[in-house]
Amino acid sequence: MDNRAIGYMDSGVGGLTAVKQALYQLPNEQVKYVGDTLRMPYGPRRTEEVAKFALQIGQYLNETDDGIKLLVIACNTATAAGLPLLQEHLPIPVVGVIQPGVESALDTTENNEVGVIATQGTVDSNAYYNGLMAGNPGIDVRQVATPDLVTLVESNLTDEAEKQAVVTDQLAELIGTDIDTLILGCTHFPLLSNEIQQAMGDQVTLVNAGAEAINLVEQILDDNDARHGIYPMANHEDDLYFTTGDIEPFQKIAESWLEIPVTVKHLEADDNGLSLSKED
Amino acid sequence: MDNRAIGYMDSGVGGLTAVKQALYQLPNEQVKYVGDTLRMPYGPRRTEEVAKFALQIGQYLNETDDGIKLLVIACNTATAAGLPLLQEHLPIPVVGVIQPGVESALDTTENNEVGVIATQGTVDSNAYYNGLMAGNPGIDVRQVATPDLVTLVESNLTDEAEKQAVVTDQLAELIGTDIDTLILGCTHFPLLSNEIQQAMGDQVTLVNAGAEAINLVEQILDDNDARHGIYPMANHEDDLYFTTGDIEPFQKIAESWLEIPVTVKHLEADDNGLSLSKED
Repeated sequence: MDNRAIGYMDSGVGGLTAVKQALYQLPNEQVKYVGDTLRMPYGPRRTEEVAKFALQIGQYLNETDDGIKLLVIACNTATAAGLPLLQEHLPIPVVGVIQPGVESALDTTENNEVGVIATQGTVDSNAYYNGLMAGNPGIDVRQVATPDLVTLVESNLTDEAEKQAVVTDQLAELIGTDIDTLILGCTHFPLLSNEIQQAMGDQVTLVNAGAEAINLVEQILDDNDARHGIYPMANHEDDLYFTTGDIEPFQKIAESWLEIPVTVKHLEADDNGLSLSKED
Repeated sequence: MDNRAIGYMDSGVGGLTAVKQALYQLPNEQVKYVGDTLRMPYGPRRTEEVAKFALQIGQYLNETDDGIKLLVIACNTATAAGLPLLQEHLPIPVVGVIQPGVESALDTTENNEVGVIATQGTVDSNAYYNGLMAGNPGIDVRQVATPDLVTLVESNLTDEAEKQAVVTDQLAELIGTDIDTLILGCTHFPLLSNEIQQAMGDQVTLVNAGAEAINLVEQILDDNDARHGIYPMANHEDDLYFTTGDIEPFQKIAESWLEIPVTVKHLEADDNGLSLSKED
């Protein structure tokens, strides 16, 4: 039994899609989340820089207050760039979102035609391509970088027609192909799943890599006998969400997506790492 | 989302083994439990009588206060005697413990030699035998009635040597056979799993039918979008445990097994059904 929170990190609000699945599947687990909104998007950045940011965040969560019992890198770009580094440097289990997405896609596809949409960084890393090929060398993988979908989510745009137009445009290369499975290879994308499904058609199954990662989290908690106790239960009013950017838009998206009130605090981020802002 | 409790019923404390799994696997679900200790053991009773008792309990749980959203018949004898009757008469999903135990045993056995220990009533019903045969006609099933294990659990005996002697004696027909899987076909028996494992040896895998039933409960909650919300969370101080027998021994076993404080109330049981005792 371990009552510490599970930590989550992302370049912004995308990792909230993994948190939403965790609140559903592991409701009795506290959440500590860092969205590095100041330095987003991660996609166009150098691998070493993304890995460094991810490690700063992991260290902040691990070393502050009671720490965390497990870290989810709820960001595909940061997983591709930094998973081994964080696993090496942090004294807790670290889970990424790519391998769970790969395994779910391999289970889902019936015709072995799989699409991947992700940031440029994730596409360039070939992490999904390599993972899928390792699982089934006969698979046909179509990877497309769709960076505008990240900024679309973070913009909190509400005009449905405008959102659909951006999504359809970004997916142009995949529409009309034979893929029966599409990996949402960026944790921001499930926030656009309706629009993506609409653009792709019902014959395509969307794989939510961030949500799949929660199965691995559950397994690690069980293997380590590390679930939160039931007496007392976790209290989600004690969960903490941090952003390195502006509190208000982050809170707005988080509360709308998670459908609960959330407490958001501001973190200063610089070359030396993260620290809580004085006014908080 | 449905914040009502899940109901559990048993002839005594045995169903607490299913509750323990639920508290672990579905921590955010309230519990309402009835142990019909006054009228236990169910094993030697006529089928119609057991089915009637089970229906009385189901109706009490369903009709009192906020009711329940699902009933687990956490008792093999009552499942064999009354599952279809309760499913027909109660307006909520009703889950038994036999089919989940059958499916787990079929998944577990490697040599198709499966043992079943249960009450006389469950053995006579052939519910496990029929279920196993329907799943795999090539299976070899050895059923043994071990009613003394029920009274052993309810007696709350603490002398380890004495407990082991009773268990080894009751299992005599199975010890030394080729079975590689043993279904604990009575929810009381997991409370003796250490002694049963000791008597059978490590080559035999024990199947906890009551715990397996919680997988089916989880699936039904998901299919009906009926999990308890996370804001606020369930509070296990609000869980209720009822017994038709003496409060003190029930509470002692329940708190020792579940490892949390429990509130126990007394129910009057007669031919007209169940009702809360005046003094509560």
